[in-house]
Amino acid sequence: MNAYAPPLDDIITLKYGAGGSAMRRLIEGVFLPGFQNFLPSGNGNGNRDDKGSAVGLVAMDDGAALPLGDGRYLVITTDSHVIHPIFFPGGDIGRLAVAGTVNDLAMMGATEVLALTSAVIVEEGFRRTDLERVQASLRATCEEAEAMVVTGDTKVMGRGELDGLVLNTTGVAITHRVVPDNTLQPGDLLLVTGTVGDHGLAVLAVRNDLGLEGDLRSDVAPLNGLVRAALAVGEGHGTVVAMKDPTRGGLAAALHEMAGKSGVGIVVDETAVPVSEPVRAAAELLGIDPLHVANEGKAVLAVRPSAGHGGNGGEEAEAVLAALKAHPLGRNAAVIGRAVAERPGDVILDTGFGRRLLAEPEGEPLPRIC
Amino acid sequence: MNAYAPPLDDIITLKYGAGGSAMRRLIEGVFLPGFQNFLPSGNGNGNRDDKGSAVGLVAMDDGAALPLGDGRYLVITTDSHVIHPIFFPGGDIGRLAVAGTVNDLAMMGATEVLALTSAVIVEEGFRRTDLERVQASLRATCEEAEAMVVTGDTKVMGRGELDGLVLNTTGVAITHRVVPDNTLQPGDLLLVTGTVGDHGLAVLAVRNDLGLEGDLRSDVAPLNGLVRAALAVGEGHGTVVAMKDPTRGGLAAALHEMAGKSGVGIVVDETAVPVSEPVRAAAELLGIDPLHVANEGKAVLAVRPSAGHGGNGGEEAEAVLAALKAHPLGRNAAVIGRAVAERPGDVILDTGFGRRLLAEPEGEPLPRIC
Repeated sequence: MNAYAPPLDDIITLKYGAGGSAMRRLIEGVFLPGFQNFLPSGNGNGNRDDKGSAVGLVAMDDGAALPLGDGRYLVITTDSHVIHPIFFPGGDIGRLAVAGTVNDLAMMGATEVLALTSAVIVEEGFRRTDLERVQASLRATCEEAEAMVVTGDTKVMGRGELDGLVLNTTGVAITHRVVPDNTLQPGDLLLVTGTVGDHGLAVLAVRNDLGLEGDLRSDVAPLNGLVRAALAVGEGHGTVVAMKDPTRGGLAAALHEMAGKSGVGIVVDETAVPVSEPVRAAAELLGIDPLHVANEGKAVLAVRPSAGHGGNGGEEAEAVLAALKAHPLGRNAAVIGRAVAERPGDVILDTGFGRRLLAEPEGEPLPRIC
Repeated sequence: MNAYAPPLDDIITLKYGAGGSAMRRLIEGVFLPGFQNFLPSGNGNGNRDDKGSAVGLVAMDDGAALPLGDGRYLVITTDSHVIHPIFFPGGDIGRLAVAGTVNDLAMMGATEVLALTSAVIVEEGFRRTDLERVQASLRATCEEAEAMVVTGDTKVMGRGELDGLVLNTTGVAITHRVVPDNTLQPGDLLLVTGTVGDHGLAVLAVRNDLGLEGDLRSDVAPLNGLVRAALAVGEGHGTVVAMKDPTRGGLAAALHEMAGKSGVGIVVDETAVPVSEPVRAAAELLGIDPLHVANEGKAVLAVRPSAGHGGNGGEEAEAVLAALKAHPLGRNAAVIGRAVAERPGDVILDTGFGRRLLAEPEGEPLPRIC
């Protein structure tokens, strides 16, 4: 995180919803104050110890974790989905809503979804057949994630008061072990579960009519099955110590958040980051770094070498990597970097020719990407 | 419920979000299909027995209730808030969001809020000071309800893509006893916790610049404390057997829903329904029935005479009434009617001069009331 934090503007602009440093400042400045003392953990500051106590609002993790009083935690996460257009190559807003919420639960270590809520806001004049198509996709994605919608809400806004359709999905799950995003230590290895940049560039291409639609497809998918496989490696030993899904702001924002919250530096081997050929080509054409672009079916995992191992952690990472690669959604998984003690909060890109700082994005380059 | 259900329109219009029969048909036609078999109760149809098993989507209750496997139930409810204007006499969208969600939990019998989520969607160009004002009100209402926001989401839509500000609030709570809305039996007495029509008419007046604003104030308030007091009467004996908050579509919609789902008729003593003088005057001026107008700080409770009592249930109702009246939010509580075996699904208004059917509203007369 940057030491210099510019003041909030008087007027909300798109960057404040773009998943980067501007959004973080808005949350810290407007949404957090007054809720620090309302945390269930009892320690009053939203932090946790490594044993996995409650995770509250101040932690700004993918969701919250509340103790149920019997060793279990209730994990809860919420997301509004405002993507435009609602149908895009590889998915639609219904699939995105379910996958986005299921993935946030999974990133907290909760891979069995207890329930989803579905709140729909529609613009007057919206076509019922489009609503049915979205709903069918939402339902199919629920089946894929073994999740169910248990309650919902329906609102209609007048013509011109809302651009089409907005969904909010909240998810709850129960887990015995909470996996946070702020517990990296020097030596931890970082893995990504597949190619990056697919979602954002697919949406960008279709929205701007780039003629690239045939090659680019969003990766939107529920990852709880994949994450379950990774967590099963060395179960109970905490091999996977932190997770984050690189959505708005892409891999760069996710790594910055993990580095900043954990107080470590992260060195990324740029050549090891999987990027598909169509994404590389489109990104070059548009002058956008795929590392800054949103993903909706990828996760970043931190793997810790076992205590006393003393080596480079390669053994544990190889085992998790193998588990990921054995899953259809993890075929292109790769080890991409390592946490270091130097330069806490910074992400350093090793390009193969030298090293440079990977800037924390102020926000996703594209509004309404999710 | 009406036997005749007209087909869904091809185009979504405002009535489909208005809380009445049109919205019910949209939910039944588009949102429910495919989720019937996804219920946690195991009975596959979303119904429950009187002992309080799981409540799923099909029940279309105020929320869902999921068994935690240890005799406790996790209650979950979600609401999007699209009210216009966001500041109105007696409240604002922040207070409404918390109260609306806390009240839905309370209506399921869950009066201790475990956690709330807060998902904010803002239009580009929105003033930060307005956002801070909404957030301050949301926070104050949380304190009133002894609730806390534990996780959130922030999205910004472009100028003209959203009319100002939309909030989604999801709430979770844990309860040992679920109070449904579909278990009325003939002989049950119906109580309302105070005057009806206040919220809807306050918003209507300010929106249409009727010059009545001084007299009309929304009743928006979190009711969990009030409901807790009512449930404590004859605790464990199930004195209060069903609850519903008369929001969109007002008292008429709430009573219709309870009657229809329970398969009983409801006779309402019109003269017993509390209506404030300013509301009565404004409603008359506008030609609107206050019984059709949304409330945001009221509840309808059904009280069952004790088994073998054989009387008219007056004793139990008086005890609950006294508990309600002792609470600041229940001072104007009243017994307003009774469930009967005749005319299942119908609500009959006894005007004092005769009886007539109270029609099920197709929807709230006013869009964006909540």
